[in-house]
Amino acid sequence: MATQAGFLVKFPQVAQRSRDRAGAPARVGMAVRSPKGVARGVRCRASLIEPDGGRLVELVAPEEGGRREALRREAAALPHRVRLGRVETEWLHVLSEGWASPLRGFMRESEFLQALHFNAIRGDDGSMVNMSVPIVLAVDDAQRRAIEASGARRVALVDARNRPLAVLSDIEIYKHNKEERIARTWGTTAHGLPYVDEAITKSGDWLIGGDLEVIEPIKYNDGLDQYRLSPAQLREEFARRNADAVFAFQLRNPVHNGHALLMTDTRRRLLEMGYKNPVLLLHPLGGFTKADDVPLSWRMKQHEKVLEEGVLNPESTVVAIFPSPMHYAGPTEVQWHAKARINAGANFYIVGRDPAGMSHPTEKRDLYDADHGKKVLSMAPGLERLNILPFKVAAYDTKQKKMDFFDPSRKDDFLFISGTKMRTLAKNRESPPDGFMCPGGWKVLVEYYDSLTPAEGSSKLCEPVAA
Amino acid sequence: MATQAGFLVKFPQVAQRSRDRAGAPARVGMAVRSPKGVARGVRCRASLIEPDGGRLVELVAPEEGGRREALRREAAALPHRVRLGRVETEWLHVLSEGWASPLRGFMRESEFLQALHFNAIRGDDGSMVNMSVPIVLAVDDAQRRAIEASGARRVALVDARNRPLAVLSDIEIYKHNKEERIARTWGTTAHGLPYVDEAITKSGDWLIGGDLEVIEPIKYNDGLDQYRLSPAQLREEFARRNADAVFAFQLRNPVHNGHALLMTDTRRRLLEMGYKNPVLLLHPLGGFTKADDVPLSWRMKQHEKVLEEGVLNPESTVVAIFPSPMHYAGPTEVQWHAKARINAGANFYIVGRDPAGMSHPTEKRDLYDADHGKKVLSMAPGLERLNILPFKVAAYDTKQKKMDFFDPSRKDDFLFISGTKMRTLAKNRESPPDGFMCPGGWKVLVEYYDSLTPAEGSSKLCEPVAA
Repeated sequence: MATQAGFLVKFPQVAQRSRDRAGAPARVGMAVRSPKGVARGVRCRASLIEPDGGRLVELVAPEEGGRREALRREAAALPHRVRLGRVETEWLHVLSEGWASPLRGFMRESEFLQALHFNAIRGDDGSMVNMSVPIVLAVDDAQRRAIEASGARRVALVDARNRPLAVLSDIEIYKHNKEERIARTWGTTAHGLPYVDEAITKSGDWLIGGDLEVIEPIKYNDGLDQYRLSPAQLREEFARRNADAVFAFQLRNPVHNGHALLMTDTRRRLLEMGYKNPVLLLHPLGGFTKADDVPLSWRMKQHEKVLEEGVLNPESTVVAIFPSPMHYAGPTEVQWHAKARINAGANFYIVGRDPAGMSHPTEKRDLYDADHGKKVLSMAPGLERLNILPFKVAAYDTKQKKMDFFDPSRKDDFLFISGTKMRTLAKNRESPPDGFMCPGGWKVLVEYYDSLTPAEGSSKLCEPVAA
Repeated sequence: MATQAGFLVKFPQVAQRSRDRAGAPARVGMAVRSPKGVARGVRCRASLIEPDGGRLVELVAPEEGGRREALRREAAALPHRVRLGRVETEWLHVLSEGWASPLRGFMRESEFLQALHFNAIRGDDGSMVNMSVPIVLAVDDAQRRAIEASGARRVALVDARNRPLAVLSDIEIYKHNKEERIARTWGTTAHGLPYVDEAITKSGDWLIGGDLEVIEPIKYNDGLDQYRLSPAQLREEFARRNADAVFAFQLRNPVHNGHALLMTDTRRRLLEMGYKNPVLLLHPLGGFTKADDVPLSWRMKQHEKVLEEGVLNPESTVVAIFPSPMHYAGPTEVQWHAKARINAGANFYIVGRDPAGMSHPTEKRDLYDADHGKKVLSMAPGLERLNILPFKVAAYDTKQKKMDFFDPSRKDDFLFISGTKMRTLAKNRESPPDGFMCPGGWKVLVEYYDSLTPAEGSSKLCEPVAA
């Protein structure tokens, strides 16, 4: 498809060129400290930031050797099976590919408590890795009693249609204190938190943790699986492109020209710092989002247009889907968003204003202080290796008729267009000011809102399934 | 007073003996690793565990040199003064003596956010110290506006009668999001949390942080100030006694023989480990407690009896008051209780079942899982240097007619007497089983409940004041 020209999987030529240059490894950052030290003409392959815990934990059974079939048979025969809902399958996906490395499965109590209290987990060697949101699996009391009574150490995890997805072993079952989990994760227990309504309130009163072995890669069969690159695949791609810096941009909204300006400007700054080939990981979140967010499939169409219309440079941009569900837990969640990208090879992270924020569900204010995400991220244990790039605020410059970094000395020239404002314009088929977003991208947004019946708050959700 | 024979300040003879032996420092733990390495006859002075951050931060102006008078004059003349309530003055006391080292004053936002999200604060050298509860000072909106409008960098802190207590300098004012603070500290936002009702709900919507200089030591003039030993004074006393291990026992309840057994048994175990002189810091909490807890003055009388009647050995016990107010924040607060004792020289900490726990204020259950305190403490960042000694459960052995460690093989022989049960017995002037508590100690408890009018839930509170 020509329209996907900017997307990673559509750039075999770039990959080819990078492969040709691959050779002896060079340390990331070397170029900054001593650019002249890298002899011209030496073919070098960038060595990316290490995953948390030293190596990427991949939990999908290997394709060769019959392990998948053996696991599938075992799972079918196991007396206890836990059925995963949409969000839980997304977490299974996340865990299976090592986004949460060094986690080896759904959290046991010790990991859960450390995530809740410290936003970080201590490894066997005493070092801390960041882990700010609980990645847990709930079971109800009947299941808990049955599993405990049988003395089982392994349970099967199955999808909505009872098909085995994984085996969880060396299990531990512990109490699911929902109130405490919610309070410590969101800093509120107000009713109406989207993730809580979706995945916690109706879930069981017990949590089951253990080591995961996933039968085969998780696929969604929604036409977007090609963009669901695992951390290992992303690292491979960055290495192929000879990236000596990777800067990640997490998003769950359409890309406007202000975002694009920020990303382009970041690359410029990294080049100025001495990096030779900084690559952008444009990384829309693909898991659960709240009903009034633009659905993934439409966002992907919009991002495509942004690349196609040249707003972002396809040569230095990798677009892929981050499979995590969204908590909307502000300063707590932004750490997860950053940590997962370390595991995918990013050593720079662009943090926005009020990242992972939303309106307070019951009060007329934002749930989080807009600056806390940036502050907490810069202080978070386990993220010391990551370079945090604070978002520079861009707004529409009515004089220059384009998005530009806000200049407080002529503040009246600038127009701020919030996400809410943008969505309202698109819903009403109104046009934003010229230069706010590329025309093709805007058209996608308008089409999305046109596709909704008036009663619809969101489009249909796509359930993940085994491949 | 003969009745106080067991108390620290009443043991000049012990202090004298220790001083005589003082000499070159020896590392704590040396006795364990190589007891024979310490040559006989060498006079050595135990070197205690280092305070957090490397040195004890004391914030009271020195007595000499006129600094106190100068500060007092400055405070009287400063245009902005913040009046401290009871709990805030207790925190001023805590900060002034270095219990919260390396904190140098009420928290600025960066410290507040780290305490809330990570239960730990990163020092200038990158290392983490534990700090799990926010130590903050609230101001209202009118005060905030006035201070900000004036551009002041220093404010006076005054007591209820407007007398200057301290100067806070290099101030920073930031938002006091009470809901988020409460949720992240307690893991609930349910109404009826005692500390929240006492010190947060009615407090201002802004927090003011900065560096403290306290005019003179905080005194309460309640006849108990002699027991309010600062971390420096405690360290001095442990050194005088030539302690080579200090084990701290935090409590806010009367001491029964089960507690005593635990403390005696801990000393025995430390001796077995090779320590020559383990000293117990029996350390009742002296600040704000909830209305149905036994007030400090009565608890101190009760503790006196426990020492006087030989239940604990005065020679190896230091009784002192820990000036902190009580949060009842379970696993979050137990870290504060432990961390503060490191600063006072303790390298062993006895953690109870459900430490700093209480009933859920609105639901029929305990607020915290009884085991979480112990678990969280053992994993907490910044407490790696502290040896955690889990509480062994003691109960009344009806066969042996004494408190003993619970033996599950003959569980029917044991009677569990909870704090609530104990208080109910004392209120009703009933006697507990023989051997549950020393007779003198029990008599104090009964006298306390007799002293209450039927309507009283608690006795009068004693406000701290400047000396």
